[in-house]
This record gives sequence, C-alpha cells and structure tokens, in this order.
Amino acid sequence: MRPHSFFVGILLALALACGGPASAQDAATWIWYPGDFEIWLSNRMQVQRVERAVAWPPFWRLYHHQPQMNFTRQLELAEPEEITLAVEGTYNVAIDGKFVHGDQQRITLPAGKHGINIQVYNPVSPPSVYVRGRTVHSDATWTVAPRPFQAVAEGAVAAASWNLSAAGQPPSRYKLATTEVKPAAIQRGPHSVLVDFGQETIGFIKLSKLKGNGKLSLYYGESPEEALSTGTCETLDHYTINANDGDFIAGASRALRYVNIEFDPGVGFDEVSLLYEYLPVTPRGTFRSSDDQLNRIWDVAMRTLELNTREFFIDGIKRDHWVWSGDAVQAYLMNYYAFFDSDTVKRTTWALRGADPVDMHLNTILDYSLYWFIGIRDYYQYTGDAAFVKSIYPRMVSLMNFVLARGNANGMLEGLPGDWVFVDWADMPKDGELSTIQLLLARSLEAMADCAALARDEAHAAAYRQMATALRHKIMATFWDTQRQVFVHARKDGRLNRLVTRHPAMFALMFGYLDDAQAAAVRRNVLMNDTVQKITTPYMRFYELAALAESGRHDYVTAQIKDYWGGMLRDGATCFWEQYDPKVKGPERYAMYGKPFGMSLCHAWGASPLYLLGKYYLGVKPTQPGYAAYIVEPKLGGLRWIEGKVPTPRGDIAVFASATQIKVTAADGQGLLRFTSATPPRSGRGALRKIADHQYELTLESGKTYTVERSN
Amino acid sequence: MRPHSFFVGILLALALACGGPASAQDAATWIWYPGDFEIWLSNRMQVQRVERAVAWPPFWRLYHHQPQMNFTRQLELAEPEEITLAVEGTYNVAIDGKFVHGDQQRITLPAGKHGINIQVYNPVSPPSVYVRGRTVHSDATWTVAPRPFQAVAEGAVAAASWNLSAAGQPPSRYKLATTEVKPAAIQRGPHSVLVDFGQETIGFIKLSKLKGNGKLSLYYGESPEEALSTGTCETLDHYTINANDGDFIAGASRALRYVNIEFDPGVGFDEVSLLYEYLPVTPRGTFRSSDDQLNRIWDVAMRTLELNTREFFIDGIKRDHWVWSGDAVQAYLMNYYAFFDSDTVKRTTWALRGADPVDMHLNTILDYSLYWFIGIRDYYQYTGDAAFVKSIYPRMVSLMNFVLARGNANGMLEGLPGDWVFVDWADMPKDGELSTIQLLLARSLEAMADCAALARDEAHAAAYRQMATALRHKIMATFWDTQRQVFVHARKDGRLNRLVTRHPAMFALMFGYLDDAQAAAVRRNVLMNDTVQKITTPYMRFYELAALAESGRHDYVTAQIKDYWGGMLRDGATCFWEQYDPKVKGPERYAMYGKPFGMSLCHAWGASPLYLLGKYYLGVKPTQPGYAAYIVEPKLGGLRWIEGKVPTPRGDIAVFASATQIKVTAADGQGLLRFTSATPPRSGRGALRKIADHQYELTLESGKTYTVERSN
Repeated sequence: MRPHSFFVGILLALALACGGPASAQDAATWIWYPGDFEIWLSNRMQVQRVERAVAWPPFWRLYHHQPQMNFTRQLELAEPEEITLAVEGTYNVAIDGKFVHGDQQRITLPAGKHGINIQVYNPVSPPSVYVRGRTVHSDATWTVAPRPFQAVAEGAVAAASWNLSAAGQPPSRYKLATTEVKPAAIQRGPHSVLVDFGQETIGFIKLSKLKGNGKLSLYYGESPEEALSTGTCETLDHYTINANDGDFIAGASRALRYVNIEFDPGVGFDEVSLLYEYLPVTPRGTFRSSDDQLNRIWDVAMRTLELNTREFFIDGIKRDHWVWSGDAVQAYLMNYYAFFDSDTVKRTTWALRGADPVDMHLNTILDYSLYWFIGIRDYYQYTGDAAFVKSIYPRMVSLMNFVLARGNANGMLEGLPGDWVFVDWADMPKDGELSTIQLLLARSLEAMADCAALARDEAHAAAYRQMATALRHKIMATFWDTQRQVFVHARKDGRLNRLVTRHPAMFALMFGYLDDAQAAAVRRNVLMNDTVQKITTPYMRFYELAALAESGRHDYVTAQIKDYWGGMLRDGATCFWEQYDPKVKGPERYAMYGKPFGMSLCHAWGASPLYLLGKYYLGVKPTQPGYAAYIVEPKLGGLRWIEGKVPTPRGDIAVFASATQIKVTAADGQGLLRFTSATPPRSGRGALRKIADHQYELTLESGKTYTVERSN
Repeated sequence: MRPHSFFVGILLALALACGGPASAQDAATWIWYPGDFEIWLSNRMQVQRVERAVAWPPFWRLYHHQPQMNFTRQLELAEPEEITLAVEGTYNVAIDGKFVHGDQQRITLPAGKHGINIQVYNPVSPPSVYVRGRTVHSDATWTVAPRPFQAVAEGAVAAASWNLSAAGQPPSRYKLATTEVKPAAIQRGPHSVLVDFGQETIGFIKLSKLKGNGKLSLYYGESPEEALSTGTCETLDHYTINANDGDFIAGASRALRYVNIEFDPGVGFDEVSLLYEYLPVTPRGTFRSSDDQLNRIWDVAMRTLELNTREFFIDGIKRDHWVWSGDAVQAYLMNYYAFFDSDTVKRTTWALRGADPVDMHLNTILDYSLYWFIGIRDYYQYTGDAAFVKSIYPRMVSLMNFVLARGNANGMLEGLPGDWVFVDWADMPKDGELSTIQLLLARSLEAMADCAALARDEAHAAAYRQMATALRHKIMATFWDTQRQVFVHARKDGRLNRLVTRHPAMFALMFGYLDDAQAAAVRRNVLMNDTVQKITTPYMRFYELAALAESGRHDYVTAQIKDYWGGMLRDGATCFWEQYDPKVKGPERYAMYGKPFGMSLCHAWGASPLYLLGKYYLGVKPTQPGYAAYIVEPKLGGLRWIEGKVPTPRGDIAVFASATQIKVTAADGQGLLRFTSATPPRSGRGALRKIADHQYELTLESGKTYTVERSN
C-alpha cells in the first residue's frame, strides 16, 4: 500500500533525480539558511572521533540547524513559467499566501507580480530547496526566514549555497571525494599484513576478494610502531567477517600511513588498497627556490594543509578531526597562499561559531573566541567578500556581547570558571589578566569595528573602535615595562607578573601596535633573545616567525625554517607535526597527552611555511580588501633565488627574484612592486620610482609582466 | 560484516531491552535536558498537520532539542556496584574524567567518592539515558549540561523525566495509547461506505481483511456533510491498494465522527473500526446537579477536554492540532478541575516556549506570549511545584526580555511588524496600545515577580514587582474613563479610542485590579450591559463568565451556560465547538476561515464549564500554592443541588450543596468552608464562625467529612 499523501513524513522529493550538474547558463543551486548546512556538516564530521572504539564527540556545546525554514522570492514574470522543485524536508508551496494543491514538484508560476514561498521542515538535515525554471532558479536572490513570506525588513536574509548545483546532489548527501591508492610496501605475516602507503594519508581501507569467517582487525598508525602497538594505537576497527570473495570497504575513514591488518586463520583477501578521501582543491600557490630542502618543506607543507582541508579546516587528520578556532585561523592564512579556497574558510567560520545563544567560548577556549573575529577580518582583507561579512555579522555581535559581558572591572578578560585559557602549550601561568589575551581582544574589537562598518552598523562601528583604542592604551599602560622595554606576562589581583614571554611581543609586532623604537626593543630584548623561553609548537612558531619576517629578519627565519621543519623531514616526516622537539628521538617523539601515540603527525598548524614563504619571501599581500590593491615585495632571505605564484581573487601573481633580477606577472588590481637595489635598477616596462636609499617602487598593471634588473 | 565499533553512528543501546516497567522500589527513569523532549515531541506532533494532502507545519519558528548533552552524577558507594545503561545516541562514559573502555552497557562503578559522566550525541531525538544499578539510578539526582562534568555552579541543571520508566521504552519511541472502537452506524453504497462512530473521536481507521487492487480514499468529517464533501472536507487520505486479506491500518491519525470510504470496484474489506488514539488520563473531577442539561454539558466538556489532552494540550483535534498558548492556558485551568494532569501542563509549557534565542512571540501572537507567564503562575498556585518553576525560570526571563524590549516609549506594548495581536475573533481595532494587552502585561509581570522569588532571583523579583505596579497605575490613568466608569479600548499615537469592549473589564475584574466601586461599575456598565458588543467565541466566554462568577452572578452564569453550551447540544454537538452562533443553522455552522468545513467541532476552549462549575459552583480553589490552604465556597447558581469532586495534589475534595445542606470531605491541607445561611447553621463536626451577616466559616481538617445544615 503506497500512501498518496506523500508530503507527510520526511521525504526527499527529487523531481530532477536524473539531472546531472547544471549547465553554466542554469544557475540553480541548493539553498539553505546561512550557517545551517555548516553546523549540520560539522556535527556529522566531528562526532566521528573515536578513541579506540569509544565515541568522543567534542566537549563543547554542539548546535543544530533550524528545523524549519521558509524560502521566499518575489517574481515578476512576463509569461507563466513552469518550475521543478527538489526539496529536502516536508514542504508546502504557497503563491501570494495561498497553498498550491496538486503536483508539488512541478508548478506553474503565473505571469505578473507574485510572491512564492516554500515552507520546509526537516529536523534531520538542513531544510533546503532546489528550484529550476526557465528564468526562476534557487540562488542568492531568494530570502530565507523562520516565517512564511517574511520580509527582509522583518529579518529575512539572503539564502546561502555552496557548489551543490545538481538536483540529485542535495546537501544531506554531501560527501568528500575518494580515489583508490595502492600501497608502497607490504609485509606479510601468517595472520597479519603490515601495509605502508608511503606517506601520511586518510581514507577507507579496501580489501579485494575478502573471504572466510572470523575476526578482522585494522590497527592504524602514522608510524609503524603505532600500527603494531595493537594495545595503544589511537585508532582501530574490529570486524566480524562472513564473506565470499566480495570487496570489503572499511566503514570508517581513518588517518594513517601504515595499517596493520590482523585476521583469524579462516579469513583471507587478495589486495589491500586505500580509498583516499579528500576535498578537491587546486594548488594555486607555488614556491621554488635555490634551496632544495626548502622546496621539500614547501611541498610537505602543501600536503599537510591539503590533508587538513576537508569538510572544514581541521587540526589534524588522525586524532581529533575537530574544528579548532586557533588552528583554523592559521590554516586560513596558509590557504590564501596555497588554494585560496574561500568556501572552506566560510564553512569553517560558520561551523566554529554555531548558533545562538552563546554560553561558552569557541572550543571552550577564551583565546579561540578572539581568533575567530580576527579570522573574519583577515578573510575580508584577502577576499573582499563583504556579503559574507554581512551575513555572519549578527553572530559576531552575539559572540562579542558574550565576550564583553565576561570582562572584568578593568575592561580586561581573564579566565572565568568554565573557560580554558590556552595561548600555547607552554610553561606559563594562565590566570589573571594575560597581556597576550588583551592584545587579541583589542585586535578583535578592531575587527568588529571594520565588520560593523561593512554591515552598515555605524553606531556599533564607532563604539567598537573606541573600545579598541581605549584598550590599547590600557595595555601599554599596564603591561609595557618602560624600563626593560618588554611586555610583561600578566596581572593578577592587581599585581603584575613580570615574566617575559615571546607571545605578547609577537602579537603586538604583528598587529602594528608598537612604534619603531618599541618594535626594535622587543625584537632585540625578546624575539632574538635566547634567554627568553623558546617556543616549541609549530602553532606559535607561526606567529613568532611571522613577526620576525615583519621585522625584516628573513635570514634568521630561513635558518629557523630549515632547522625546525627541516628537522622533521630529517626525522622522516611526510607531513608536519603537532609538536617537534629535535632532542627527543625514537618512538617517544610520538607521545603526547599522556598517550604513547597521542601526538599528531599531520597537523595543519605545521604547514605555516606556506604563509611565511608566500607572504614574506614572494612578498605578496593585499593592501586593500580582495587584492583591489596589493604589494609585491620579494625578499631572498639568504636564498640565491626564489620563484612562485600567489593566488588572488583576481588571478595569480607570479614572482621570480634573485639578487640581480625580479620578474613579476601582475594580477588584476592596483599592484605595487617594491624592492631594493644597490645601484639604480632598470625595468623594461613601467616607470621606476626611488622612494629611499636603495629602495624602489614600480606600479604594476593588470596582467602584465615586468622584469627588473637590479644589483644587491 | 558487522562492525564491532558499535559506538560510531547513532545507536540505541538497549542493554535492558527485555526489561518491563521498573518496580516501585527501582526509581530508574529515562532522563534528558529539561524541555528538550517536549520540543522534539511537539515538533513531531505539530508538523503532522495536513490540509487536503498539503503539509502545513506551524508558521512560527520551530526549535530543536540540543543534540549533545552530558549526564553527570556524584557517587559515594560503600562497595563497587554494577550498573546497566540504555542510551539514546552515540555516547561515552567517563569516571573521574577518564573514559571507560570495553563494555559500555554494563559498567562497574568503583567504591568510594567518584563522579560519573555520560556524554550523549543524538541529533535525531533528545539525548537521553537510562541507568539502573542496585542504588544508582537515572533520576532527578543527575545533572545535565552541555559540557562533561559541568558543575551546577557552572550551569548544570537537574535532569528532567516523565513517566518513561522502562529501559525498553525510550523517549524516541513514545506513542499515545490506542484502543479499537466499533462504529455506531454504517451506510453502505456500491463503492463507498459512510461510517458514523457516534461521537467526535480521533484515531487510525482500520479495515479488516482488505483485498484487491485499486484506489481507496478516506474522507473524514466531523459532520456527515463534511465526510461526503470529497472536494472540500478538511482531511483525506488516498491509498493505492494491492492487498490480500490482511488488516489495513491507515497511516495517519485523524479526527472524525464520520468517515466516507470510497474505493475502486476491485477493492473490498470486511469491517471498519477505529484505533482510538488517546493519552491515558484519570477523570478525577466530577459534577452532578439537579439540572440534567448541565450534567450533560459537564460530560461533553469532559469529553472535549479529554480529546484535546494529548501529547500536549492542543486547540482542536481536527484541523491544527497545534499547541496555542492562549488556548492552552485555559485548558490548564479546566484540567485542574478535571484530570489534574500536571505533566501535560508542564510538557505544554515547555513546548510552547521552545528554546532560546526568542525572536517572535509564542505562536507569533503578542497576547499569547503574555498568557504563557500567567499559565505558569496558575500552575504553581494549583500544584505548588516550585521545582518546575525554577527549571523553566531562565526561559521566562529570556521571553520577558524579548517582550519588554518591544515596549514603546510609554512602557506599553503594541503590535510591531511581525506581531499578531489577537485578543479575540471580534470586531475591534488591534493597533496601538490596547488596554487588554496592558492588563495582561501587568499580570505577566506579577507572575514574573512571583517566579523570580521562587527561583531566588530576589533582585529581579523586586524589579518585576515595581514594573507591574507602575504599569497598573499607568493603565488606570490612561484607560479608565472616570466619567463613564469603564475601560476604554485603546490609545494610538497618543489619542484614545473610546470604544468600550468587554475584554479589559473581564481581565481587570479577574485579576483583582479594581476596587469595589470600580468593580460594581464595570459589572453594571459593561458585563451586564447588552449594548456592549457580545462575545461569540467560547474562548473569551471563558473569561467573561469567570469574571461574572467572581462577581457572584452565578444565576446569570447558569443561564448563559445553559443557553450557549446547551444550544450546541441542541444542535447535535458531541463535543464543544470552536465558535457558536445560535442564529446560524445547517451546514453553514461548519464554515470558518473562508472554508466550508474550516470550523473545529471539538475545540479545547469549548470545555470551560469544567472550570466554571468546579471553581465557582463547587467553589473549590487553592489559597496557598498546591492547596496547602484552600477554600470551599459552594454556590448553587439557581440549581437545587450540586455535587462533585475537585482533584488536588493532596487528594480529592468532595462537595455536596443544596439550599439546606452542605457536605464536604476535606483533602489534606488547610481547608476552609465558607457558606451562607439565612438562619444560624448547624454542623456535626468543627466550630462554625460567623464572619458577616448570613456568612459562616468552618475550618476543615484533613480527610474528614463535614455536614452543615443551613437555610437559604
């Protein structure tokens, strides 16, 4: 018995189930309420974390998409038009407030001025619709709101989408791509096989022609030691097999380089392979230099970032695959010099934030809430995507309200019960008012001011700006030790903790909060001072080396990169690690969090050379949002030559530089090449300007290639 | 192939799947975060609304339960104890912050002081757990919070539950009960059958021994006209049959008295019956009198309320079965004199409110937000359940914040864009400041003040009290026409609309906002004045007759009940209707909302005689929360005798009254009988006190029966 009342219950109405990808002309795409798909997808991804068969979903609040939404559009049609609908959820269609009866998947819109509303209920995956007609398509011209026919003035917002442009590929069925890869080496035992895929990877183990009855276990390892340590490896899967020559594909995607397959005597299979699971991205950024090790570092960093660029930017592929704000904001910056994948930045930003109301910091970490604001400001600077900023601005306001409500009587932030103050895996007290935290808050307030202005919230823009300025003055008055010319670490209960760490120095330098004398002092007294506690995480090395590069210490940065990241390569890394201490050798390198294989050997924050080499060596950065204007200021950092491409929303910028020559192919936008030359340089195109002793500038025109001969 | 990693994905782990209901000693029950089950269940129920095969979910914002929760308990065990777990969702168990590995359904708790945390992710139905041990059970001693091991000081709250006390009956499988009922009459045609179940009812149509191939349609009707009007009846179901002598049960529960079954020539079946679907409730309240019509009104009102007392108190069983706040708050009051089903009041209150943040009024209706506060205050007065008030208090605060933020410069409420100002289906302007709305706001602020005090939020309690007092003064200064001694209807843009309606008079009287002279004036000038627009909905007749009864006009109320509700009975009602106008006859009575059968013939607000007769005739009401003290003040209202029972949390109160005798059996609590007698009365037990001319009082002791002889 088949009920005709097919709108009862959840259904996936796929009128266009046979439809392939839409043609270029046809701009229909699945649409939903901004953020809802991302919340749903991030839950689906993050709750997959398992520690040795125990489920380990994130320990922070998880949100949920809104189960009901209305998709509305105002129409003005010269003639009647038939539309076909695909909808995820129970739904109705109304035209001018009246329900359409009869066929709900093929509807004729009347000519003239009308309003259409599609009300969708879906508690399982985000309510979403796909509409295709001759002129009417589901796209950003539709608005979304909780009430039917809700107007923009009453709170309706522009519909969100991604790249789901086929009716038959609805949001709920979204999956990463897979492709089969073969092992690099196999070691067979009587009832076990140790497989090496040659490099860090992630996916579903496939066993061809599996047969027999009995148990089969997969023990995964980023190292052979981990895969063979069946009692302590971080991830494993047990299966009970009753198979007859069919192909077996493991139920879970796992990170690994090695897999140790153990099975009962009755069980056998032919080949082992991996369905490598990935987000298709285009490596637009490139880098080559006269130093082969540095080139290898770039390549491994690209691999590291690519593996962690998935449904979202994640911290590492093995252990958490959670979305962490502090990690993500660095991945964004690397991404601008690697894939320029704006969509993944946007998805990650929505996912981190979740919905309202806010009652805990992002990832429960105080500093991670602050990085989130800064990441949005960075995103705008690189992409110029004001629509996204406007879309997420209301959630910026509610998070900032939460943050500010937790300020103390001095208008500063300190960890309150339930807050995790992280800053770094480093030996430092975390209670009271940390100077680093206040610097991040000041920067967050500046980001709020900029975004408020974009969202036309002028009153708040001014208020945030004022708060930022006041806080910056307070920070200097409180934490700047005028005698020692350093920032001190913290104040607690009114008493300063005069410990000096690298962290506030790095951030103050990068944020441009210091005058020249102060900047020189912190470089000398802190960053270049070996008696100050060293930074051991690639996470904070990111900011440390960026701050040094900002200060023109490229030779030192080159040496540091070669030493630190080169050290990991010498230790056999095929991706960069969560933590690295060259003094620790053997399997002990893999221990962390009290677990022998707790450390992650493929951690996004390890890929920071991408950012450092792209921004500070190739020297490309936007000076106006979205590269409307940009600067190219190549620095050799002790290398004989460097060359590469930096992606922008307006095309790639190609750079070659040696001591005697610079060659730049400009992207769209207002470009400026700045370089040094000991003697007056020559250029085949464009007028050179001398701006200081040995300092020259050249204006770049869109798409043109410039070659400058110089001496250094 | 069966994966052993059974904690990946959503699972229902039923270690105790074979377990029947828990024994009385064993207090284990399914627990969840307060409100989450109710939000989930109300979505499931409300989205089932269908208008002639078009899905019609509610047009207001729907919320969603929180997909992840942590259930925590502090333990102190003399010896190790084994517990068994049933969990709805993916979960892990941690003791003192460390995961339990191995068996996740049978866990041994160590002796001594420890903390246990169960983290549960479930996006589909509310995360919930069931734990049973020798001494450790899941119950209200557990706390719930978004973070693992979160303390009460950090926001964890007591776990909520209902009556789901068997491991095998988890929240997601909750269903109303069903029982099979046979038709009262059947009319057979060649390819159709018209079935009459004899009275309004609801459930799943069952056809025994269905056979053949072809179409089968069910057209439901509250009247025979509706069931036979296949093109305009409100609900219908079409099925395509391919059956062989099996029993057919319709997929949807529908309200009906009649069903018109039409089928293709090839289709046949034996018997028609109905699986009547209901919430098991006990009719504790009773009423009988010397007037048979009034007795029948009571019975039909009980049937009406019972049919609408389901997963929640709904407005009517046929059309919406949505939860409407203004309707519900009346159903609560009737319920206190009928079933005293506190759980359904609590579920309904949670469901109406949903979650945070609030961006529209309950049901989008301004007045419906206000009734919600008043309903909670009423609930506390009748039940004394302070735990519930404390539990829902945070959502009272956030809704009141939303309401107050929409106040105008005068601190009054008027409809803003997106607000529906309902008040009543009555001819009156709804824009500007309505006096009725401000009275409801004042009462809501008083409710907030009382509930804030219960939640130990003393600062807010004082603030709310002050706002209420100030508003009451403002209402009198603005809307009380001292010359005409009436409330005027509204003020808009500073100008009074001097229309007089019954509504503000009713509410001001009931809320006790008038002094004796003012009260007498509104009774005379408004309520007993036939030139003032009459009330035509049972919805507002509820308050009108209650206000008149408060004023001692019982004879008039009796006549009104017999006329209005008696009129429906004369017109063939088996339940009371959404609207009744005795002047309209024939099938036109069934029309509403522009649809020939749009009116509901079983509407909860039609059952108000339960409240009127219980509270104002049997005369029983609590004077302290939860009937810790109460009064019994029987009024004959022109009847020769009345008798009945009124349920309380402390037992039933039985009352008989005639002109010459009153007999009361007291419940627990401090009771007081108050009555009139022309001559000094006599009592077999207790000391009578004269309190005024012909007015006497008698103190009632728990469980005792008192007989008073009097003359009137």
